[in-house]
Amino acid sequence: MNFSSKLMEQAVEAFSSLPGIGKKSALRLVLHMVNQSNDDVASFTGALTQLKKHLKSCTECHNLSDEEKCQICSDSMRNQDTICVVESIRDVMAIENTGQFRGLYHVLGGVIRPIEGIGPEQLNIDSLIARAKKADTKEIVMAISPTIEGETTTFYVSKQLSSVDVRISTIARGVSFGGELQYADELTLGRSIVARMPYKIKE
Amino acid sequence: MNFSSKLMEQAVEAFSSLPGIGKKSALRLVLHMVNQSNDDVASFTGALTQLKKHLKSCTECHNLSDEEKCQICSDSMRNQDTICVVESIRDVMAIENTGQFRGLYHVLGGVIRPIEGIGPEQLNIDSLIARAKKADTKEIVMAISPTIEGETTTFYVSKQLSSVDVRISTIARGVSFGGELQYADELTLGRSIVARMPYKIKE
Repeated sequence: MNFSSKLMEQAVEAFSSLPGIGKKSALRLVLHMVNQSNDDVASFTGALTQLKKHLKSCTECHNLSDEEKCQICSDSMRNQDTICVVESIRDVMAIENTGQFRGLYHVLGGVIRPIEGIGPEQLNIDSLIARAKKADTKEIVMAISPTIEGETTTFYVSKQLSSVDVRISTIARGVSFGGELQYADELTLGRSIVARMPYKIKE
Repeated sequence: MNFSSKLMEQAVEAFSSLPGIGKKSALRLVLHMVNQSNDDVASFTGALTQLKKHLKSCTECHNLSDEEKCQICSDSMRNQDTICVVESIRDVMAIENTGQFRGLYHVLGGVIRPIEGIGPEQLNIDSLIARAKKADTKEIVMAISPTIEGETTTFYVSKQLSSVDVRISTIARGVSFGGELQYADELTLGRSIVARMPYKIKE
């Protein structure tokens, strides 16, 4: 691309370094920025600078946080005896959005992936075991993606926790709500038949 | 979306205020930013701050520029006697990318669109006429989009220039290269037959 302005070129470079943004989209974003007021641009760049400067990892659950302890860990209204183990902070958000879980979280920071050099020691497993050992912890919910690496991680973490006096559960796997049976993959459908559950009539 | 961090929320708000970026993409971009080094984030925000602070409009052609005169206007190697009239700076880039034009540009800043309150006085037409009157200007190339508003603008500008001693031309309209005739729209195909050109055999 030919730019008549070095400043434009630099700004387009900056935006196109972001994931999923190509040169053309970057140009569109830069032209949008040029047409914004000084205050708008300052508040945009300010938000990013503040984020980078002040964002911390929660000392308890490793979720992103503004303080030493994140909003979830410091919320005394939440169920302190249940810890949901997830891969990433995105999963925390996804589960929070369902509104179905009122316990605490623990972010592993990934799954065991030997091929990429990610072993158990790269993940936040030790701090999970320390939390599990606390007297008030009664249940650990494993909410790791049901992929090969995810299952391995669930197995490894559960094994590490077997000596600790806590109940270990995993989130239910089976056919999705709203999906048609004929389109469900064989593995999921097969397992959901094997792991069938008693049907409860709601009154 | 539920955020455990106010800083994250603000950064996601900032990104999702950009055109074509929703909440989910914004989150992805923010998480990318979080994983970048401090220097990378500083250079990103710096590029935008510098852009907003120092970007000027070229006093000659109204293209975006770092200096009073843009790189194109101040390039003495370019053909000073031909001025290509375009709607926006994006069109300047598009034409520059073809590498086929070595003259100067004039950015109108839009087209006449009475319904949105954009009349000739909102566009950079007076400065174009002033430039056209200069002794070295020999040709004005109208490169406005062939839409209804664009054609109106081309007509209006050409009329204003009719008293000035310059040659006025428009970019060629016709079927696109690489397109198949059967898929060309009727108006374009019809006009391209009416405006047929003598075929030159290259030797």
